[in-house]
Amino acid sequence: MSALPEHQTTAICTSTPDDVFIRGKSLCQELIGHLSFTEMIVFQVLAKRPTPAQTRLVDACLVTLMEHGLTPSALAARLVYSSATEALQSGVAAGLLAVGSRFVGTTEGAGHLLARLVAAGASETEADAIVAEHRATRTPVPGFGHPQHKPDDPRSLRLLELAREEGIAGPHCAALEVLARAVDRAAQKHITINATGAIAAVLADCGVPIEILRGFAIIARAAGLVGHLHEELQRPAMRAIWEAADAAVPYDGPPIEGR
Amino acid sequence: MSALPEHQTTAICTSTPDDVFIRGKSLCQELIGHLSFTEMIVFQVLAKRPTPAQTRLVDACLVTLMEHGLTPSALAARLVYSSATEALQSGVAAGLLAVGSRFVGTTEGAGHLLARLVAAGASETEADAIVAEHRATRTPVPGFGHPQHKPDDPRSLRLLELAREEGIAGPHCAALEVLARAVDRAAQKHITINATGAIAAVLADCGVPIEILRGFAIIARAAGLVGHLHEELQRPAMRAIWEAADAAVPYDGPPIEGR
Amino acid sequence: MSALPEHQTTAICTSTPDDVFIRGKSLCQELIGHLSFTEMIVFQVLAKRPTPAQTRLVDACLVTLMEHGLTPSALAARLVYSSATEALQSGVAAGLLAVGSRFVGTTEGAGHLLARLVAAGASETEADAIVAEHRATRTPVPGFGHPQHKPDDPRSLRLLELAREEGIAGPHCAALEVLARAVDRAAQKHITINATGAIAAVLADCGVPIEILRGFAIIARAAGLVGHLHEELQRPAMRAIWEAADAAVPYDGPPIEGR
Amino acid sequence: MSALPEHQTTAICTSTPDDVFIRGKSLCQELIGHLSFTEMIVFQVLAKRPTPAQTRLVDACLVTLMEHGLTPSALAARLVYSSATEALQSGVAAGLLAVGSRFVGTTEGAGHLLARLVAAGASETEADAIVAEHRATRTPVPGFGHPQHKPDDPRSLRLLELAREEGIAGPHCAALEVLARAVDRAAQKHITINATGAIAAVLADCGVPIEILRGFAIIARAAGLVGHLHEELQRPAMRAIWEAADAAVPYDGPPIEGR
Repeated sequence: MSALPEHQTTAICTSTPDDVFIRGKSLCQELIGHLSFTEMIVFQVLAKRPTPAQTRLVDACLVTLMEHGLTPSALAARLVYSSATEALQSGVAAGLLAVGSRFVGTTEGAGHLLARLVAAGASETEADAIVAEHRATRTPVPGFGHPQHKPDDPRSLRLLELAREEGIAGPHCAALEVLARAVDRAAQKHITINATGAIAAVLADCGVPIEILRGFAIIARAAGLVGHLHEELQRPAMRAIWEAADAAVPYDGPPIEGR
Repeated sequence: MSALPEHQTTAICTSTPDDVFIRGKSLCQELIGHLSFTEMIVFQVLAKRPTPAQTRLVDACLVTLMEHGLTPSALAARLVYSSATEALQSGVAAGLLAVGSRFVGTTEGAGHLLARLVAAGASETEADAIVAEHRATRTPVPGFGHPQHKPDDPRSLRLLELAREEGIAGPHCAALEVLARAVDRAAQKHITINATGAIAAVLADCGVPIEILRGFAIIARAAGLVGHLHEELQRPAMRAIWEAADAAVPYDGPPIEGR
Repeated sequence: MSALPEHQTTAICTSTPDDVFIRGKSLCQELIGHLSFTEMIVFQVLAKRPTPAQTRLVDACLVTLMEHGLTPSALAARLVYSSATEALQSGVAAGLLAVGSRFVGTTEGAGHLLARLVAAGASETEADAIVAEHRATRTPVPGFGHPQHKPDDPRSLRLLELAREEGIAGPHCAALEVLARAVDRAAQKHITINATGAIAAVLADCGVPIEILRGFAIIARAAGLVGHLHEELQRPAMRAIWEAADAAVPYDGPPIEGR
Repeated sequence: MSALPEHQTTAICTSTPDDVFIRGKSLCQELIGHLSFTEMIVFQVLAKRPTPAQTRLVDACLVTLMEHGLTPSALAARLVYSSATEALQSGVAAGLLAVGSRFVGTTEGAGHLLARLVAAGASETEADAIVAEHRATRTPVPGFGHPQHKPDDPRSLRLLELAREEGIAGPHCAALEVLARAVDRAAQKHITINATGAIAAVLADCGVPIEILRGFAIIARAAGLVGHLHEELQRPAMRAIWEAADAAVPYDGPPIEGR
């Protein structure tokens, strides 16, 4: 148990009979109707109001992260929701539980590498060292490679272009380029910068701390899952998912008499 | 917000530097090594130690509820676990979220009907009234009917037989028989007493209140899900589940240029 | 098990090696950089692009729903996250599981009443009938009443004002006014229109179907919970929450020898 | 994405119209009424039927793990359940999400150390090396130390005694003793073997693989949480928890005008 401050406090929200105050601003007078949801997310999570350019890039990242079709996350959400339609929130919660190390962990991994490279002045030597470490353990460099999107991931190209257009591209986007060149050198061919790498660089250059990057993926996915559950309500796919999965994973345990 | 007692308390557990006390009993001196897990479940949840016969029937119900193959619950658990292997508990939690109205709600529904019938002296008139109400709204009587197990669900036969053998079968098991005859009369043929009906009757005759019946299904399923996640760890089926599900639910939205 | 269509399909998302298509639009060419997150939420969930006025009101509702301080939802999220910091998503999921009948169910309840009143031409007779039904069962009319915000909830005033300004206020906002007058008549005093009532009316007039209203609360809360977990990471409050809760709910079970 | 076997299968469960078969045994003829819940857990998870001695020790471990009072896990479960009483499973799921690295991770950590020590022939040198590694990084050795239970944790004493009595105590229990002596030598005083250390040793000597140890904690906690939710239903503590927590974590953010 780590040592804790003597007094534990919160700086997010307080209220009076007349109003709710978030980060010191009146919800009714200063926030509702004045901030978009995205601006409010940045304001509540990071305690500072984003610039229009930051807002545009955070919007772009949330739009990119929101929807990827029938992923394990969306499938889990639909299976749970169909079994407990009285609790829409359970379906979303189940789907979010799949936003773990395998799919969004790479965003964090990429973010930490970029932060390290920024701290080292984006030096090519440090980038080569990072790549060498991963090759030594036969681990892919997080943020690079994609099974389908080759030679380039169109989402990454678009996000990085937008970041340059809006003047957001800063040290983390620059570090991503340096790292990408090191990755290509070591592989002796061009490796895709995937969407998780680009999102990590762009959000970091928007001022999002690496340790809360996963939070933005969670927010975006929560919205995407609501869309899937709305479709599941209107035209349920659960039975097809169940039957197909059951057929795809046959029983091969101890033999049953008479079968 | 309903009115609450002035003082809110708990009667389950307290501890001293020397011991933990559950429902007033010493964990180390009176419970560990003296009670089976099932006896401890009944003791902690219901605040009374079960008889050997009650324990045997609760064991039988938990064994019955634990495992049903690749259900939506097990599929959701596997999909989540494969995406976040650092958090086994997330897979179990996702699977439990599917233990909702569709699959275990019928146990509660059956339990409430049996309690009503017991309160009415298990009269045939009341049983006929219950069946008529369900027919009027074209709702199946919870606890009855099964797509595969016809004319009888072997689990129900076994549980009810065991309840009689152990002297547990009491007013709720008797009410189930009265209700079953009313269901058959109305359908003019024999309708299966399914496992949820038998479990509701048996657990109620063991002294489990109807409102916590679902809790016993949850405990049993938690254990079953751990088995599925252990198998998923050893020989992952997630990729097969994902691909089969994706193929089974094709895209039919707005056309994409060039496809 | 209800009858299902022969073919189960999805209309949300598909992809090619070059792009991802959501509701038929190119993610990279038509969505990233062109839609705000809020516009994308409406587009993905409801399959239609919102007008600027609708977007402004959906933004306002999401901003209103996002943050309410240390609610049970935020407390559960912090308790879980502190126990499993490797899984930020588990904290958010736990918090979302509290977005159930007690706190957001009233939004749905209000939405269904407003839809009924709209279907009845917003007649005062129907409004009086609705109020009478609730009084007969001593149930509060969902969307009305607040323990602190009296005589009016400032959030409701602001949202309804904004809806009028933007020309969004339509049949559901009108029905809310009719219902409010009926509530006041029956109570013989002014009863607060609370935020859940106003949000239901405004979102419904933005074209959000009642059955998915809860989804918008879930999205907003997911974002609010990320902010709480970010604060929990930076200055943990869990120990204070735990100790205070433990002290507030003393043990009053069977006496322990020597205590 | 790791390489997968060409065919993905399951060996847990299959069914016929007449019966359900788990690990090749007839649920109705060979399992219900023949196995206790604990025997069934071991059988389903590990694919082998436990001996009576193993069953007694697994029972003892599950009994030990089940209940610890108003922990963060129980508090989260109660907060969620009170907010969504229609979904008992959501409360249990939320509570289980807190069964993460902080509270049960140490069982796994202890288990891995014991396995390493067993592999090294339980040598004192290896034990000293393990302790030295932890001291070098100022990390506590998992399984050792307790804030209240000093000099000994009564649960550990009891579990290890029972393991000896039943002839279960084997290489992992022996390794625990070797490790305990190394811990004491390095600390120059006696350090408590806490319950997580004893449970890891005992379950490992019952044949439970280290990688699924956490699963047994999850099963036991699921049962404990059902008891808490049953109490929450009968005499709700949520309001007291909420108010106490809110008061214990005061707002200290930007000042609000007029406050």
